[in-house]
This record gives sequence, structure tokens and C-alpha cells, in this order.
Amino acid sequence: MSYDLLADFGRPLRWGMVGGGTDSLIGETHRLAARVDGRYQLVTGCLSYDPAIAKRSAEVCLLEPSRSYTSFEAMAEAEANREDGVEVVTVCTPPHLHAAASEAFLKRDIAVLCEKPMTKNLAEARALKETVDSSQAKFALTHCYTGYPMVREARALISSGAIGAIRQIECDFVSGPFLDENPDRSKRHWRFLPEYMGTASILGEIGAHAINMISYTCGELPQSVLAKMVTLTPGREVADDAQILLQFPGNRIGRMWLSFVATGSEHGLAFRVFGDKGSLQWRQEQPEQLIHTPRGEYARTITSGHLDRLTPLGAHSCRLREGHPEGYVLAFANLYRDFADQIIGSRLGVALNPHVSTVPGADEGVETLRFFEACVRSNDAGSTWQNL
Amino acid sequence: MSYDLLADFGRPLRWGMVGGGTDSLIGETHRLAARVDGRYQLVTGCLSYDPAIAKRSAEVCLLEPSRSYTSFEAMAEAEANREDGVEVVTVCTPPHLHAAASEAFLKRDIAVLCEKPMTKNLAEARALKETVDSSQAKFALTHCYTGYPMVREARALISSGAIGAIRQIECDFVSGPFLDENPDRSKRHWRFLPEYMGTASILGEIGAHAINMISYTCGELPQSVLAKMVTLTPGREVADDAQILLQFPGNRIGRMWLSFVATGSEHGLAFRVFGDKGSLQWRQEQPEQLIHTPRGEYARTITSGHLDRLTPLGAHSCRLREGHPEGYVLAFANLYRDFADQIIGSRLGVALNPHVSTVPGADEGVETLRFFEACVRSNDAGSTWQNL
Amino acid sequence: MSYDLLADFGRPLRWGMVGGGTDSLIGETHRLAARVDGRYQLVTGCLSYDPAIAKRSAEVCLLEPSRSYTSFEAMAEAEANREDGVEVVTVCTPPHLHAAASEAFLKRDIAVLCEKPMTKNLAEARALKETVDSSQAKFALTHCYTGYPMVREARALISSGAIGAIRQIECDFVSGPFLDENPDRSKRHWRFLPEYMGTASILGEIGAHAINMISYTCGELPQSVLAKMVTLTPGREVADDAQILLQFPGNRIGRMWLSFVATGSEHGLAFRVFGDKGSLQWRQEQPEQLIHTPRGEYARTITSGHLDRLTPLGAHSCRLREGHPEGYVLAFANLYRDFADQIIGSRLGVALNPHVSTVPGADEGVETLRFFEACVRSNDAGSTWQNL
Amino acid sequence: MSYDLLADFGRPLRWGMVGGGTDSLIGETHRLAARVDGRYQLVTGCLSYDPAIAKRSAEVCLLEPSRSYTSFEAMAEAEANREDGVEVVTVCTPPHLHAAASEAFLKRDIAVLCEKPMTKNLAEARALKETVDSSQAKFALTHCYTGYPMVREARALISSGAIGAIRQIECDFVSGPFLDENPDRSKRHWRFLPEYMGTASILGEIGAHAINMISYTCGELPQSVLAKMVTLTPGREVADDAQILLQFPGNRIGRMWLSFVATGSEHGLAFRVFGDKGSLQWRQEQPEQLIHTPRGEYARTITSGHLDRLTPLGAHSCRLREGHPEGYVLAFANLYRDFADQIIGSRLGVALNPHVSTVPGADEGVETLRFFEACVRSNDAGSTWQNL
Repeated sequence: MSYDLLADFGRPLRWGMVGGGTDSLIGETHRLAARVDGRYQLVTGCLSYDPAIAKRSAEVCLLEPSRSYTSFEAMAEAEANREDGVEVVTVCTPPHLHAAASEAFLKRDIAVLCEKPMTKNLAEARALKETVDSSQAKFALTHCYTGYPMVREARALISSGAIGAIRQIECDFVSGPFLDENPDRSKRHWRFLPEYMGTASILGEIGAHAINMISYTCGELPQSVLAKMVTLTPGREVADDAQILLQFPGNRIGRMWLSFVATGSEHGLAFRVFGDKGSLQWRQEQPEQLIHTPRGEYARTITSGHLDRLTPLGAHSCRLREGHPEGYVLAFANLYRDFADQIIGSRLGVALNPHVSTVPGADEGVETLRFFEACVRSNDAGSTWQNL
Repeated sequence: MSYDLLADFGRPLRWGMVGGGTDSLIGETHRLAARVDGRYQLVTGCLSYDPAIAKRSAEVCLLEPSRSYTSFEAMAEAEANREDGVEVVTVCTPPHLHAAASEAFLKRDIAVLCEKPMTKNLAEARALKETVDSSQAKFALTHCYTGYPMVREARALISSGAIGAIRQIECDFVSGPFLDENPDRSKRHWRFLPEYMGTASILGEIGAHAINMISYTCGELPQSVLAKMVTLTPGREVADDAQILLQFPGNRIGRMWLSFVATGSEHGLAFRVFGDKGSLQWRQEQPEQLIHTPRGEYARTITSGHLDRLTPLGAHSCRLREGHPEGYVLAFANLYRDFADQIIGSRLGVALNPHVSTVPGADEGVETLRFFEACVRSNDAGSTWQNL
Repeated sequence: MSYDLLADFGRPLRWGMVGGGTDSLIGETHRLAARVDGRYQLVTGCLSYDPAIAKRSAEVCLLEPSRSYTSFEAMAEAEANREDGVEVVTVCTPPHLHAAASEAFLKRDIAVLCEKPMTKNLAEARALKETVDSSQAKFALTHCYTGYPMVREARALISSGAIGAIRQIECDFVSGPFLDENPDRSKRHWRFLPEYMGTASILGEIGAHAINMISYTCGELPQSVLAKMVTLTPGREVADDAQILLQFPGNRIGRMWLSFVATGSEHGLAFRVFGDKGSLQWRQEQPEQLIHTPRGEYARTITSGHLDRLTPLGAHSCRLREGHPEGYVLAFANLYRDFADQIIGSRLGVALNPHVSTVPGADEGVETLRFFEACVRSNDAGSTWQNL
Repeated sequence: MSYDLLADFGRPLRWGMVGGGTDSLIGETHRLAARVDGRYQLVTGCLSYDPAIAKRSAEVCLLEPSRSYTSFEAMAEAEANREDGVEVVTVCTPPHLHAAASEAFLKRDIAVLCEKPMTKNLAEARALKETVDSSQAKFALTHCYTGYPMVREARALISSGAIGAIRQIECDFVSGPFLDENPDRSKRHWRFLPEYMGTASILGEIGAHAINMISYTCGELPQSVLAKMVTLTPGREVADDAQILLQFPGNRIGRMWLSFVATGSEHGLAFRVFGDKGSLQWRQEQPEQLIHTPRGEYARTITSGHLDRLTPLGAHSCRLREGHPEGYVLAFANLYRDFADQIIGSRLGVALNPHVSTVPGADEGVETLRFFEACVRSNDAGSTWQNL
């Protein structure tokens, strides 16, 4: 029981952030998620490389000025030398910095929670995984959607055989908010600039979530992929829409649609998995419901909060009773909570609750980049099948 | 106003059926649809080639025994020679007979309403289209889902520019009822026997609806396609699942998923169309709702029956006021009603209501077979892009 | 099997209508419903008391001019004297004429399908029930919503104990289309004129459906009611909104909301029934789904068309396979079909399929008027409990 | 902008809890909500009157043992005397202690966030309101559902006239989890024991939310009510189901259903408000959607996160962009955040953002108890209309 862990530890973890200043959208979401369970106290940060933004960000985050940095390397070194130095760091910079920032802390045995995609390319991912493997510190990726109780319930149900052998998998991320390109190139988000992740940055940005969702819930990856990417927005330099076919061992199939420009769509992450004994479907916009249709029976709406009926992993991931929507931040917080419990439990030397170990890590980071590169190869070769 | 047409004509059309006996599922659905509006009176039929089934079918359909046939050729000849001979015939045999049966009547200037796919292959389709073009009689295809008021509303909205220039199109038909193959080959439906339409019969059987739905609502077809077909059911001789990518002129994209074996799915026909000014989505299982999201606004739920707000085509296709579900049979009946009004109007020599002319015909039949053959070529070539 | 019945009978029933001319909304709906299954042929009618409307209505209905009447009494007499006279008549006039019109035919042993409410008051209802009881002909009420497969499934499930002992019942009919009163009194529908059914005509018009829905599905009626009726539309002479509490034996409770003026609501008929072992809920606007939540389990979505899983009554009421929406007209047609089979079966002297006998009749008509009058008494007494 | 407030204040508020120990469900929910925005640091508590539970609760909450109390009076006195004493206290004991606990802190000018219902009866509520009025400290009630962005959007839309003049109001709280009574009376929750709030405790427990939801969104209360309460669970000593009719000035009407025993229902809080220019509806189980149907138009689904389209109050209440469900805890956190900003803003002497002032307070607490007592009077008098 995780309460005991925290009580025994007696204090929250000392937490820092690299990236996530006041000019970042995702930074505040990390803070919301980290605060929910009281296991993290923000004590330091390299919240921006821009001194003015870093200063202001430190003020609103109530950091001591002396522990606000503008270089993650400096932060890592200074904090590693403090008695009360940071114990765990969130890296939420643009992806081209993930590897360097993560390594700065991992080398000093400071745990890292890194945004996805793990790195900007596969070579970096493999190198970072080696660093992770040789570090004493823990490492995880914030594939936030895997924190939803119903996503975790899907993983547990599939692994228990509830839908039999999987035959078809669909995971889409069809969103709509980026319908215009900013004429001022200097104001474009990194995802729309090829210098950060190439012209296929959509794969790293949202494809990373989709492929990890398949891997997380179904426990497997496609063996080969076929991709078609297009740019639908005038003036845009990168692909903003991608259609991908998936082939799984045994001639089983799947598909993925990634879009930044599906007009009117709000978010659009969803999956459907069909097995020979049943199916599951889930949509991020209605996340407390998992539709389970056992073969030959009516659809059942599995809902969060039913501690007496959910699988142990599903129940572990709910904070509220049935009928009370957990929402996105609590899903995200499940990753923070589970990662904290991994760290604290290992510090205290107690046997870990196995449910805290499903947070994606370096292996999943490498997987995602392998998928990314196979899709790029396929698209570049005119949409041919490419092995991962 | 169509009431006037029928009143002026003074009687229902004399109607016959080829196929659709008591051993057919779809035959009774045609009869339900044809009866709804009182424009057809069933007077003859070649309801089965099996004399016993034909006899029993004639009894339950209240046919005079002398007008029940077991050969469509005999039926066409005999009826063409009667004063009170049949005026319009529904062909709902398996597809390998569509061409021959339709031609038997068209050559005698008897109108034909033919089930989809129009023929078993493209060569036959082109030949039948020539027959249609040279016949005095009218010809239509029962793409029944195009009769739904909200599908027709989508067509009218798209054509009016309500969602701007189309960029992405998805149309799926992901159904789940055929999860087992009958070990007794002689009892398998023609769709599971390669001798009727080859191993890709899924394209003709449900792919025909999906591609026609795109053509009907969006007014365009893909220029090239890429297909991957698999057989997921042990012992099955044909593909029962297909993933298809679509390319439209101007680097716009789309996709289609066809399945007979999506466990737990009931029907699964659905489309989403995204334009640069908005989007539309519809599901056959909730057919009275069309979700329209204008760019920058909240989603609106367009519903059937609002005669004061719908487009003229949408309003023309509703029989009931708002809040009263029209359902599948009334959608199907819209094709029957509109086709009857084409025939009657042309007999009476009156200007036709333009809304009765959207029923798909021979052009759409050829289109479908072109799509079918391009998908087969693509799949056979290892999933490469193939032009239609 | 009902097909055999029709085949053995060898022809459709000769059918007539009283009311339902071109100036009537509901008349055409009756014709759609009656035609669906081919068991009725419209041969006569008193479609309007207005000669011009009657004549035009006869033309569009393809009646022989000699069998179009402007007096139901004349129609009953003339048809009773014909060899090929009408065998079954639908009465769909305003309610103040239901009793007289129904009696004209019942006395001549011609079957009657009467619109609801059965009569304009309880005294008339009791008198008509006596006529029904003494006639050789059958009588039914077109409580059309009881024809939905999922409503019938609810009846069968409740009666089988699937939700245990009922404790709370809600049935609402909260619709929104009548937001304005016509300043020209002569153009108002009878439901807004107190001279037809008093100022509480909402009870007969839509309350009749709601109370019958409770009676049909749950098999019981409240023992006492408490009503509050108001007029929300300026210039309206009758109540257009009513709140009603229901008390059932054993201190169990329920409620009903009736409205003509719930802005934005399309139809609004819905019920929820809670028992000690589970609950059921249904909405007319999504009629193919019945939500069943067994105690301690997840909600299941029962859907129409599953002939292998539905109760016999539910399966009997479906014409289509799963995933194909039946809609309103096919629900209505279930009443027509079942009533025809009652008549034909009794003519042929065969044992009736018990499922055709659930169509509401004179007992339910009396029940509704008892409910109506108790609500009026309650409202007049300042919302006090009144026994039925 | 609230960030500035916190940055200027430079630290979180020192926070305490009365009630909410490890044996409490709601205590942890308060902590989740309070932590989300980093404006509260838990420094003290009287988490239980039971010393063992208080001790354990203090450990898991990481309190200093010296600031863990078992008497709220002792806590108030000790903390008021500290330099670094508590600044704001949450009272989440059973309701019979709300008044005394709140007064202990308010008298010492320590702010109080009190659970609903404010007190156990109207006399206590009026007395507490006097204390609030004479205290320098702020007071609020945790009507948590009013924190949902879409509930606040409804308030702002209604107040702006978006649906015109309100005519009908429905607010239900029909939940299902308490289907059994514990045979061991000593283990029953206070809500099922008449000694805490009488036999009508359902009114205080969930009726308080429903009546406050009406007051919060519509800005008005019924002038009179009519109630029927029943006990549906064998062995239960209090009412567990209540039907209530509402009368608003001008002969407008409404209703409320409260239940603990609607089998299969998960939560069941929902409202529908109909005006003469449109309607709004919302369900707590799908809280990110507010259905708005302007008169004569299609229903629009307003969703959270659209900062560019929402009203200022709605936008103020969202932390996430569109498509990311906020959920229950962030709704609850809106009350904590707004209350903190009231306190901090007033400390800093800055003009308050008006949006932080919608958190319900003592006036709403008195309202609720007036409603409670009128319902009890009505039920006791056999369901007669009683003025508030």
C-alpha cells in the first residue's frame, strides 16, 4: 500500500524540472500531475534557457532564486553537490535536448522522468538506453495516456486473455487544433520545424503516443509498417497528417492515423482492439469508459472506480469511486505516483507493488524511435512495407 | 411534390423480383422497403431457381402461381408479352448473375433496380453500362445506405461548401458477424466462396458500400489505392479483412477498413470527412445524427426531420418529424421511392424533382468495380499504389 | 410463424381509415406502418369530413371514389353491406370522435385499431370497452412506442425478473416543438383547444403514451398520483407542461414529466426502471438500445436484431439483423402486423403466437383515462394525492 | 492573473483539516484538490477524534506530530497562538460538527472551507452565518460540482440570457451505491443514522448539491416545494429516495429526484434547464460537455478547454486545452484555487478577479437548509406545497 511508503519515507521527493517554464504548455501540466499525490516537492529547475523567462518561472513556481538555473548541466552539477540536492528531474524540453538533459542527471544517479519521444532519433535513443542501463537511477517516459485507469484496465484484460488472440489493432491520434501555419517562422512550435525532428515530427509528437498505446495495452509491436505522410496546411514545412498500416506476426493487421489538422476534432486519441474472443475500445475524450464486447454477448461499459470489479492494475490506478471522472491530470499523476513509489520503495528497500512498474521506460523509448524510422523509410520509398 | 405524381399515375408500378425468395435475407428487406410508400405492387418473380423454394416464396408473397418463374429469362420474356406485364424489376441474386438478369429486362425496356456490386467484375460492369445506356428503361443500384436522410444531408452540405475543400476522407465498414467459417462448404454464403467474386469478395460485398458512400457524399473518387487483405478466420477461402489507403488528387488522403470479423462490432459503416472549413461524421448505427463541426465552432448535431433547417435534399429524404428515428428500412425505401418517381415522372412526362435523381446508377457501378480491381492489383503486388 | 398465416389467408386484409387525410400528420404514418408488412390493403376511407380534402386524400391513397366517404357512419353501413367490405378500420380522428367512430364499426363486427387516447373521457372509455367486449371484432390502441423491439424486450425482461422487484419508475415525455401559440384560434390543433379534451389535453395526448409505457413494460399502474400542471406559453388556453408524482403499492415511487414546450428537445419519451436486482433505461430517440445494468455488474447495451440472445418477444419484434436500426415506422408496424395476425389467425382458427397479443386494447384505454382523471383531480385540488 | 498573486505572496497558504483522516473517503479527495495548484500546504489537522486514527493520519499526511490534534477547539487555540499558525482550515467532519468546528476558527479569524451541508439544521445555519458575517476571515462551502468548467459555463450563459427566461428546471442526483443496509448499526455511515440529520439526511447529503446546483447555475431558488420521501431498503432507518416538485415565481416549475438506491446508477447528478430561447443540459458523469440547444437550431456540444470561445468564467475554470478531460478533482480544485485567491488577494490588497468569487458561501448554506426544512415539512404533511 503506497501510503505506507510515503509515511515511512517521511517526506516528498525533492524534484526539479528541465524545461516547463511559463512559456511552456506542458510544464504546468507536469506540475499539476506531480502535486496531486504530494510525493514531489519542486525545489529546483532549469525552467528556461532564457534568463528572464527562467526568473519569472522560478517566481511563480516558488523556487529559491539560487536553485533556478539556465543550464541543465549546471543544474545537474550543482544539485548533485548539495546535501539536499534534487532526487528526481522531469525533462520536458523539446526532444532534441532530451538525451543530453537526461544523461546529465542519470550519470549523477538522479532519477529522470522524460517527455516523449525519448530522443530525436534512434541512434540517440539507443545511446540513452545504455546510459539508463548503467545508471543507479531510475528512468521513465511520460506517456501520460497510459496512466488512465481504463487504459490500464485494457492492458490487464488483454493480458489475461479476456479478448483472446488479438487479430486487428487500431490506434489513432486524429486531432485538429493546428489548422494554420504561423507565417512568422520564428514563432512556430518546434514540431513544425524540420530542424528538430525532421519533416516527420508528427511521428515523434503524437505517433509516439499511438505506438506506445498499442505496445502498452496489447503487449506487442508491429513487425512491419507502411506509411503515407502528407502536408495539408499551406506553408507548412513538415508532414501534418499520416496514414500508417501495421502488420503483426501471423498475418494480423492494424492501422494508425495521425493528424494535426482534422478540422473540428478536439483530441482524437482512440483505440480499438479485436481478438477472437472479444473486443475493447476506448477514446481519450471519454476516458472513464472502456467498451468490452465479449464474443456473442452485448457490449459492456467498464467504468473507472469500481474497486470491487476492476482488475488489480485498473483498481490501483483509480483514486475516485465510480461515477467520478478521474480526468487527464489524474491519469498523468498515476505515472508520477508510480514512479515516485518505484524510487521511494527502492530507497526503503521494500518489495515493490508490481502495479507501479508499468510506467514506460527506455525500452519503450527505443521501440518508438524504431517505429518512427521504419515509417520514414516506408514513406520515403513510396509507401512500401518496412520492418521495424 | 411526389404525392401528385402517384395520384396522377393512379396506381402502383407493377413490380417483380429476381432472387429474394424465402431463403434470402435481403429479399424481404427489399419488400419492406418497396411497400413503405405504396408505389410498387409485387406481381411477379423469379424468387428462386429452386422450384420448391420459388413456389413457397410465391405463396408468402401472394403471387399468382402463373407469374412465379424459376428462370429470369423466361420471366422477362413472358412478362414483356403481357399487357399487364411487369414494369420494374429488382435483381437481388448473387452478383455473378446481376449482369445477365439485368440485361434480360433492360433489353425489353423494363426498369431494373439492381443489388450491389453491379456485376462480378469490371468487364461485365462496362458491358452492362452499355446496355443501360442503350435501353429506354431506367437502371439503379440499391446502395441502400445512401438513402439515409443524414447521408443525403452530408452530400448536400459538402456540395454547398459547408466544410470547404475536402482534405481527409475515412469510410469504414467494420462489421463482426461472420466469425466462423462453416465446415460444410456447400452451406457457405457466396461471399465466402472464391468462385463467385474471387478471394476479394469482401470488396464487392461491403467495399462497394464504402466506396460508393465516399463517391455519393464527397462527389469524388480516389485516384489511387493501396490495399492489404488478410484472412483471419481459420478455414476460410477468401479475405475477410482489408485495410485500404486512398489517395485523392492534390495529395489529399483517406482510408477504408473493411471487415467481416471485427468481434463484437454490429455493423460498423461510418464516415468522417474533414475539410478546411469544417468536418462531418456519421455512423450507420446512429443514423439520425450527423455531426457537423464548423471550423472554430462547437460540434452541432444535425438530426433528421427538421424540415425547416435541412437542405432540400435532406428534407426530401425524411418522412417523419424530428425525434422520430427513420431507421434502415425507410432509408432503403428512399431509393425505391425516388426510383419509382423517376419512372412515373418520365411516363407522365413531367419535370422531375431533382432530388429523386441521386440514386446511384450504372456509372457508380462501374466506379465500384474499378476500385475493386485496383485494390486487388495493389494487394497482389504487395500493397503498392495502383491507379483506379 | 406469421408468414404461414398470410400465405394461408392468401390476401391482405381489406383496410379502411377514419381520419388521416392529407391534412393530417399521423394519417400518413399509419399508412407507412400498415404497408410495411403487406397485410393491409387500403380499400376505403372516411379520410376527412371535408369533401374537398376527402376527395384529394382518396386520390393520393388510390381509393376508388365510390368508397371514399365523408361520414364514418355512412362508411360503416355501406361497407358492412358489401361482399368485399372493409375488414379492419383505423380510427385516427381527434379523440372526441374515437368512441363514436369505433362503435360504428365494432357494432358491425369490423375490427378497429384506434388512436390513443381511446376516448375523450373516462365515461366514454368505459362505454366503449363494453362495446368492445360485446363485439365479435377485435380492438386495439395504437400506442406506437410499445412496438419498439427494445420496449418489448424491456417488458419481457421485467416480467422474467431480470431486474427483481421494481422500486422506482420514471417515464417522461418532454418534447419541445410547440413553443408558440397560434394567434389565430381557428388554426390551432385540437390539443390546444379546451373544448376537445379540457385544459389537461396534454395528459391524453402524450401522457397517454407515458402511462401506457409504464403499464406495458412494468405490468402495473400507480395506485395514486399527484399532479401539477402549468401553462408556459403566452396566449395558450390549455396546460402545456405537467409534473406528476406516482405512488405504487408498497411505498414504491415514480414520476412523470410531460411537456410540449421543453425548448430544444426533439421528442423526449424515455423511461428508467430500477429494481432491487438491476435497472433498465431506454430513450425513444435512440430506440435500438436498451441499457441493462444488473446489480453489481457493468451496464450492458442490449441492441435490436440479436435473434439468438433476445427474449422471444424481443426477437419476434425485430425485422432486421443487429446493427440495422428498425426505427419508428417499423415499431409502429409491429402493432399493425400483430393486430393483423390476431385477426387472420382467428379467422383461420389457428392457435395464435402469444407474442402477437401484447398490443394494448380497451383495458389499457380505460386505464389511461383513469390516470388522466386522477391527475386532473389532483391538480385541481392543489396537487394532492389522488387514487386512480 | 492568479499566477501573479501566488508569486507575489511567495508561499502557499498554511492549511489545516478538521476531519478527513484515513477512515474518511472525502478527506483524501480534499487533499488531492488542495494540492493540485500548489496554493495550500497541509501543516496541521484534527484528522480524527480517535487518537490512533489521528496519529496514523498525521503520518501519511506528513504532519509534524505536535500539530496533530484530536480536538478542533484545541487545534484552533494552539494554532491561533503560533506565529506560523494555520491560515485556512477545511472542515470535513460529519455535518453535526460543521457549525462548532467552523466557529472555532472563524472566531479567531482563520478562514474556513466547510463541507456541505453547512450545518445540521436551519437554526445552526443562521447562527453560523452570523459568525461568518462578523468574522474577518473568509468562509466557503465545498459544493464541489460547481467547480466544473461546464457548470460554470452554464451559470455564465444563463446569466447572459443565452437561453432566455427560464421556465423549467430539473436537477437530479440519482445514485445507486447504497443498496444494502449494514446489519451492524455501529458501522453505518452517519447519513443512515437519524441522530445526525434526522430521517431526511438524504436532503442534506445529496439534496444539498442539487439545490445548490440550481441556485448556482440559474441564480434562483424555488419559492415552494412538495416532497415525497420513502425508504426502499429493508432495515434502513432513514429515507433513501425522494421525489420533489419545485415551484418558481411566475408559475414556472421544476423537479428533483434524490436517490441512494437507484440500482446500477453510478453517480447520477444531472441538470436540464429550459428557457424560452434555448436549453442547457449537463451530466456529472460526462462533465466536459454542456449541451446547448438554442431555440430553432441544432444542439451544440460546448466542451471545456476552448479558451477562445468560452465565457470568461468558463475559461477561468479550465486548466487544460480542449479534448483533455478535467475530471472531478480539478473541478473540486477550482473551489480551492478560487478560495485561496480570495484569501491571498485580500491579504495583498489587490482587486480580485471577479471569477474567483463564485464559490458558494454562508448564504448558500442557509438556502440549502431552508430548502431542507421545507421539504421535510411537505413530506410530513403528506406532500403538500410548502414555502421556503
